[in-house]
Amino acid sequence: MTAVINQDLTVLSQGLTVPTGFGDVSLIAATPGAIRLLGGIPAPEALPVGDIGRASAELWQDHAAAVASLQYSQSHGFVALRNWIAAREGVDPRRIVITNGGMHGLSLAVLTVVERGATVAVDDPVFPLFLRALELSTTATLPVPVIADGFDVEHLAGRLAAGERIAAAYTVPDFHNPTQVTLSAPKRRALIELAERHGFYVIVDNPYRELRFAGEDQGHAVFNDSDRSIHVNTFTKTLGPGWRLGWLVLPEHLVDAVIRLRNRVDGHSPTVTQTIVERLVTGDEQWFDRVLTAARDLYRERAGILIDALHEQLPGAFETQAPEGGLFLWPRLADDAVDPAALYQRAAANGVVYQQGEFFAASPQRDSARHLRFAYGDRTPEDLREAVRRLALAF
Amino acid sequence: MTAVINQDLTVLSQGLTVPTGFGDVSLIAATPGAIRLLGGIPAPEALPVGDIGRASAELWQDHAAAVASLQYSQSHGFVALRNWIAAREGVDPRRIVITNGGMHGLSLAVLTVVERGATVAVDDPVFPLFLRALELSTTATLPVPVIADGFDVEHLAGRLAAGERIAAAYTVPDFHNPTQVTLSAPKRRALIELAERHGFYVIVDNPYRELRFAGEDQGHAVFNDSDRSIHVNTFTKTLGPGWRLGWLVLPEHLVDAVIRLRNRVDGHSPTVTQTIVERLVTGDEQWFDRVLTAARDLYRERAGILIDALHEQLPGAFETQAPEGGLFLWPRLADDAVDPAALYQRAAANGVVYQQGEFFAASPQRDSARHLRFAYGDRTPEDLREAVRRLALAF
Repeated sequence: MTAVINQDLTVLSQGLTVPTGFGDVSLIAATPGAIRLLGGIPAPEALPVGDIGRASAELWQDHAAAVASLQYSQSHGFVALRNWIAAREGVDPRRIVITNGGMHGLSLAVLTVVERGATVAVDDPVFPLFLRALELSTTATLPVPVIADGFDVEHLAGRLAAGERIAAAYTVPDFHNPTQVTLSAPKRRALIELAERHGFYVIVDNPYRELRFAGEDQGHAVFNDSDRSIHVNTFTKTLGPGWRLGWLVLPEHLVDAVIRLRNRVDGHSPTVTQTIVERLVTGDEQWFDRVLTAARDLYRERAGILIDALHEQLPGAFETQAPEGGLFLWPRLADDAVDPAALYQRAAANGVVYQQGEFFAASPQRDSARHLRFAYGDRTPEDLREAVRRLALAF
Repeated sequence: MTAVINQDLTVLSQGLTVPTGFGDVSLIAATPGAIRLLGGIPAPEALPVGDIGRASAELWQDHAAAVASLQYSQSHGFVALRNWIAAREGVDPRRIVITNGGMHGLSLAVLTVVERGATVAVDDPVFPLFLRALELSTTATLPVPVIADGFDVEHLAGRLAAGERIAAAYTVPDFHNPTQVTLSAPKRRALIELAERHGFYVIVDNPYRELRFAGEDQGHAVFNDSDRSIHVNTFTKTLGPGWRLGWLVLPEHLVDAVIRLRNRVDGHSPTVTQTIVERLVTGDEQWFDRVLTAARDLYRERAGILIDALHEQLPGAFETQAPEGGLFLWPRLADDAVDPAALYQRAAANGVVYQQGEFFAASPQRDSARHLRFAYGDRTPEDLREAVRRLALAF
């Protein structure tokens, strides 16, 4: 008898690559005691633990509600939670679908609009985990430079004019990961117009949008008003990754397709977690904004401390730009003679670890490898200063 | 400019069908006030709400643990939870992967071992939602009759001997949904031997396994000892669907593939829910078994009440078999003159709804349509008796 399984790439999981660089947890294991500037992780101090405990206690003491929270619920997600989100997004609640966090929103988007083997335009540098989610449908990418005001829409327009065809374009518009820049309002409009003209979808990955602590909001209505945008959002950076709760703002014509897909992937997001988060955000209309205000203050302070420490302890070593929000700093090595890989090895040996810029490169052309990505959100002021001191020793 | 999206079946979501029959929520909306014998839903009385509330309160009062429960965790799942599961399954903890419930386990299994367009042998009658999960990879099925002692392994062996080729075989071995039968120990061995000989995988869907209240356990070691079985399990029927937590027992050689897939789909199951469930099951070694014992007693009583009521109020109307566990009764209409569709309409008009047997047919050959599926788990004794009274009126 011969085996009937044909272990080729037609089995989806067989084509998936093993993570290297970004997301390689052995980096952490290899550096015990190091100060980690690794992940876009919210500060423990910014998470409303006390309020969560109170909402949770109220739930479990209300027997009928507790029992309901342990049962099945609809794929679309909780109605009152979707209504609350929809009001903030300025869309019809039907267009909101609750997800298991931002990564899940990305994978649902990929499976919904990217045909197998299609080309997808992506940020360069890019959030590496998006490329992994994209592997569910394709590995063909068209890297688009991320410049000072974000995703280079003109570059993409030129490629499309030259005959390139894409199923979707992926970008992080607010406090881009890793480059920390924000897509300007005119370029948001230009990107959406390009998508509408060419019939591709824009996968708008927006986990940091609520964490603006400086500068001007460039607006999200342009995404939510278009039937060519899939706006991927999450509670991860505000209420915590551990909830695994997020949402999609979908064009009306994609809602049923996403629900059908969701029915087949895992049914629905947990009723328990949706119940608690719904109670938190809808119980007091000001509550979520209070959480955000406190978080923004905290991240503004931490970003400032990190930049100041770099300027004080390593003057001239980096070209830096003050973040306007989010959780990342993306300094560029000013001296081309510095070998970033060797620098990382010395930094790790001195007890500070970060993400190396090369991990984010979507193409060999860009100079991502000349950058370092520092995640400052979950580090205390003391840790941030000590991290820079250790980095300075590595220079 | 022409649209570049080719809306054909190469976009996964475009090939997904709209649910009809089973899972059509309009059935519920159409029958307000009806007694619902619809879903494999655990009894509210069987869910340990008080213990969950206490474990939850302890978590949120322990600040360090609370903060950790709000952060990211590993795709593989919580270590202590996996250790506890592994000890019960009798396998190495590395082979346990935590999922977002049984449906998620099924979809991960399908995406991992079923190539596009491959044929999968399935129970006939079959749990309809598996066919939907299967659409993530294929719509080609080989229906295999479910007979008195479960999945007809000899039938499948004959088809394979005749040249049929399959990527996987799907069955619910314990208290089969919908037929309530259990796969006998000899046939478990025969099925696994067939899989090992032909090189296909057995997707063993086992949500009801812990709910045996009569008869002999037919054993699970045969599945867990084979590298051709994917054993799909869940806390849904014991601790509640609202957690969306389950697990896979995987062959060692599939663990990395499933983790890679999971990294791309949604990262990991919620840290919050894993923390609470881990605390519940590992805090007191006897706790979970106490929950199971109480649940089994409850379901034994309800199954008995339903069968007795049918025999008393509708003598001779059905061929029934006393369930040995699980949540379903699958009576067959004794009188071939009864039109099951018309009966359902009259029953619904009289205020009782159930799943019609035809919804579970995997082929037109079997007589599934002559059956009714009653789910008794979440109905009180009074409701069950009243449901049968209303059904009797429909006859």
